[in-house]
Amino acid sequence: MNLALLFTADFISTDTVRLSDRRLEHLRSIRKIAVGDSVPVGQVNGNIGAGRVTNLTAHYAELHVSLDQAPPQPLPLTLMLAMPRPKMFRRTLQTCATLGIKDLWLINSYKVEKSFWQTPWLQEPALHDNLVLGLEQARDTLMPKVHIRKLFKPFVEDELPALLAGKQALVAHPGSAQPCPVHLPGPAALCIGPEGGFTDYEVDKLQQAGCQAVHLGQRILRVETAVPVLVSRLFDGCL
Amino acid sequence: MNLALLFTADFISTDTVRLSDRRLEHLRSIRKIAVGDSVPVGQVNGNIGAGRVTNLTAHYAELHVSLDQAPPQPLPLTLMLAMPRPKMFRRTLQTCATLGIKDLWLINSYKVEKSFWQTPWLQEPALHDNLVLGLEQARDTLMPKVHIRKLFKPFVEDELPALLAGKQALVAHPGSAQPCPVHLPGPAALCIGPEGGFTDYEVDKLQQAGCQAVHLGQRILRVETAVPVLVSRLFDGCL
Repeated sequence: MNLALLFTADFISTDTVRLSDRRLEHLRSIRKIAVGDSVPVGQVNGNIGAGRVTNLTAHYAELHVSLDQAPPQPLPLTLMLAMPRPKMFRRTLQTCATLGIKDLWLINSYKVEKSFWQTPWLQEPALHDNLVLGLEQARDTLMPKVHIRKLFKPFVEDELPALLAGKQALVAHPGSAQPCPVHLPGPAALCIGPEGGFTDYEVDKLQQAGCQAVHLGQRILRVETAVPVLVSRLFDGCL
Repeated sequence: MNLALLFTADFISTDTVRLSDRRLEHLRSIRKIAVGDSVPVGQVNGNIGAGRVTNLTAHYAELHVSLDQAPPQPLPLTLMLAMPRPKMFRRTLQTCATLGIKDLWLINSYKVEKSFWQTPWLQEPALHDNLVLGLEQARDTLMPKVHIRKLFKPFVEDELPALLAGKQALVAHPGSAQPCPVHLPGPAALCIGPEGGFTDYEVDKLQQAGCQAVHLGQRILRVETAVPVLVSRLFDGCL
């Protein structure tokens, strides 16, 4: 936790918060805070700054907060991700938030096992908690939006073309002829397949919707590695 | 497992292997192999190619192997990594192998907890198994070398300068004035600190040894994310 993310319910006055959960535990046991210390804080979807500890009891910490700096720039990327297996999904979700991805679409694919959609990590409170962990890692405050689309064809035919408008649209597909571009000048949309990749039919459909198929080289990467590799390659100036 | 990595002990003749462990289990349950099928294989530190299933019993599979292609190019990178916490270490080790890193130095730092060095993941069989998993993911065969250095100062003073010779040497340090370069023309050496970063003293020592301190932007990344982001940034042509 490189920053404590603050929510409306934390504020007991316009410039004072009271923390009593995981954040208090972290501030106590890892940062070993005392009254008078300052720690990095940020208001969800707002500024970042410092919180000075004004009161510390067994049950809560009160911080006087001053939020005067903008959070890091969002990444100009719409990411479509074939739903990963649950353990990998949780880590990938945090990584997406840490990297500054604000628009994440979890989509279906032939090689996505049906059981993956049953994971409790997809429920709203778990999604929220893991996005918060990812934001706090990066000292960011802007909450990503996560969209769940369990049917491939309707998504690709009915929604995807509008999502791609004005963006450079790519589908990462090992074996494609074109290498993935580097250092894009503008916003992008990127589709990443499941373990084993999108099927040829799915790649065709994504191409029909406007995506260009690109490869990352000879190596096949797990999704949790492919996301940072691709983001770094597309936007090396923006992290 | 995008490739079954083969070892000397697997060969029952010059061109036939018999597999009976995790690899058999994977070929059976995930790839659902039958006699006559071909699967990707590679010989450790040797070529990659195909293995045709010639015999399949309850206890083993025999494959007739033809190894006629070179594995992916190694990454021209020497990576010095402050020892991560055990769970993250295991994943990071696999990721390093998948990305093609062949020279990995696990080093100490003030913020590396002593207990991290006690993890069973550092024992030779566990190191080996996780490197194999990482190589198999990338369809690579070249086994990385892992060096363990539990004392920071002797390593940095006595060994590091020679390791940096002929390489562009960097230490990733949030808050540095210089941004991390992109697309290096030659080999590199890269130091990545622990959670919370190297101390100022440690960064000074690394700089004295010849490393340039660089930052990756405003966001602070976990080591398992920082490694692929940095590798992709330094060597976007090589993956």
